Amino acid sequence: MTEDSTIILISAKEMRECFAGILSREGFTNERAFECAEIFTNSSIDGIYTHGVNRFPRFVQYIKRGFVKVHAKPSLESKYGGIEQYNGNSGPGMLNAIYATETAMGLAQQHGIGCVTLRNTNHWMRGGTYGWRAAKAGFVFICWTNTIVNMPAWGAKDAKLGNNPLVIALPYHEEAIVLDMAMSQYSYGGLELSAMKNEMLSVFGGFDKEGTLTKDPSAILSSNRALPIGYWKGSGLALLLDLLATILSGGLSTYEISKREVEYGLSQVFVAIDILKLGNHSTIAGIIEEILKDYHQSVPTDETKKIIYPGERVLLTRKYNLSNGIPVMKKVWDEIKQL
Amino acid sequence: MTEDSTIILISAKEMRECFAGILSREGFTNERAFECAEIFTNSSIDGIYTHGVNRFPRFVQYIKRGFVKVHAKPSLESKYGGIEQYNGNSGPGMLNAIYATETAMGLAQQHGIGCVTLRNTNHWMRGGTYGWRAAKAGFVFICWTNTIVNMPAWGAKDAKLGNNPLVIALPYHEEAIVLDMAMSQYSYGGLELSAMKNEMLSVFGGFDKEGTLTKDPSAILSSNRALPIGYWKGSGLALLLDLLATILSGGLSTYEISKREVEYGLSQVFVAIDILKLGNHSTIAGIIEEILKDYHQSVPTDETKKIIYPGERVLLTRKYNLSNGIPVMKKVWDEIKQL
Repeated sequence: MTEDSTIILISAKEMRECFAGILSREGFTNERAFECAEIFTNSSIDGIYTHGVNRFPRFVQYIKRGFVKVHAKPSLESKYGGIEQYNGNSGPGMLNAIYATETAMGLAQQHGIGCVTLRNTNHWMRGGTYGWRAAKAGFVFICWTNTIVNMPAWGAKDAKLGNNPLVIALPYHEEAIVLDMAMSQYSYGGLELSAMKNEMLSVFGGFDKEGTLTKDPSAILSSNRALPIGYWKGSGLALLLDLLATILSGGLSTYEISKREVEYGLSQVFVAIDILKLGNHSTIAGIIEEILKDYHQSVPTDETKKIIYPGERVLLTRKYNLSNGIPVMKKVWDEIKQL
Repeated sequence: MTEDSTIILISAKEMRECFAGILSREGFTNERAFECAEIFTNSSIDGIYTHGVNRFPRFVQYIKRGFVKVHAKPSLESKYGGIEQYNGNSGPGMLNAIYATETAMGLAQQHGIGCVTLRNTNHWMRGGTYGWRAAKAGFVFICWTNTIVNMPAWGAKDAKLGNNPLVIALPYHEEAIVLDMAMSQYSYGGLELSAMKNEMLSVFGGFDKEGTLTKDPSAILSSNRALPIGYWKGSGLALLLDLLATILSGGLSTYEISKREVEYGLSQVFVAIDILKLGNHSTIAGIIEEILKDYHQSVPTDETKKIIYPGERVLLTRKYNLSNGIPVMKKVWDEIKQL
């Protein structure tokens, strides 16, 4: 490949200001421009480049094409006790999801457990954003989204499922433990990155055009046949997450979304539990610490590697990128500066 | 192998009465004996033999050894709005879990969403039992349990995680869609069955003693290294489910349970959502029907097979076994009749 893979380092401040400036020119209020810019920048600081800096140009493109409405906010459609259903009104996915997260946290404070659903919203970018936000505020948090069709059911040739990311988070001291996983073994962003670097995947990631399991990311991108995690299990889980997101939000299913020209109008669910209503913070942190202490004593198959928990690498990457700058592909940054 | 693998057919009525009789002799009240017998029988009718008839002898053994207290019922320890925490008081896992399921449904009717946790409870046998129960009553339902340690974290040699089954269910017409999955690619019951039949697994199920991924169930049973679904993803999910079950219930973690001589004193979480507070039943069923219609149109890689949704095979097996009798290994039935 002759791709230009030059990496440059951008400070968080420069990235944030650059993004905020572009979004202001796209019509966002300063406050909302800054909030979106902050989310894209924080995902990049945390090392989730596929849904941070690398995704920013597409976000701007969807604004320009009218799929994302810069001023739209969620409006309440129905409520009962600890559940509220909102119409996302095609607003920016991240701002809608932050609103839903905070509303779910408020409901949890009132009812112990709260659930907010969004229909007619947009891609929330990095799902972990909402898990970190809620868990750092002291809540147990579960959220998921459906997506456009991008994965075949187990045993099928053609894609009928979304990879429907699921986030589960809990507070841990001043930080959080955050699992942020799509139902495909690899994200398309991850496959594209490996293909660009000419790297093979570490485990089977999907099928080639002949229907054979493969570790070759380019073969999977050509066949469009990503592998669900755990074969039939991830396939079933992806279907159920879409069914629940659809019926709980009253929104569009993966099937309906996939009739559109691009991915917009998604359905999402956010559940928060106020654990401080059930126990005190330091006792809970102590229990988690004990579990993780045992977990960390796992004997690694590769002695040079440590067994880490979901979110643990993020903390290291965050610290490193904040000191050293965020690594960005020069061609991506050049593209952003043209926006 | 010279295992006696003779299969006999037992009617549901005979199985239920046999189980109820044994449990009555173990000291259960008639009502509770019948309820446990019904759950074991229904799991067997549905084809989940590993947690139905095949598991019954071990359940009786745990009663005899004092791990399962036949008269114990859950007692409320703490509550706030839509969340209630119970002590399972070492009662029969299925009766405790049914109680938690029904209590969560009651909380959902009141608050839209309800969450019940159980600490100090016992193996719930087939997790799907509670999903079918709640979904057939019209609720969206999510529950999970932790287990004794039985799976290494991804990248580790030694088991530090439970396979922590997760159940997600929703109503569909008069029936339900129920996903019931452990975080290991295969259950130990499943591995034992394949080993007994001298069958290879269809996909990698774990590692052999040399640390190589294998489809040989006997090799995995010897190494005790089951594979998490989706490698690092199922490993992370298993850890998070244990952390949540532990902190939400105030109960024991997989780490603590595994210090005991056998698996007892588990932690479980049950979440119900009353979707009828948000929409009407026939509209919801119509939406699900549309999603499943598209899903069923998946093109199978094996033309003789149909792509089915979680719970769909159960309905067929249920119908077949109710007409034909429940297939039981003769040696298992002989063992049960000696109890």
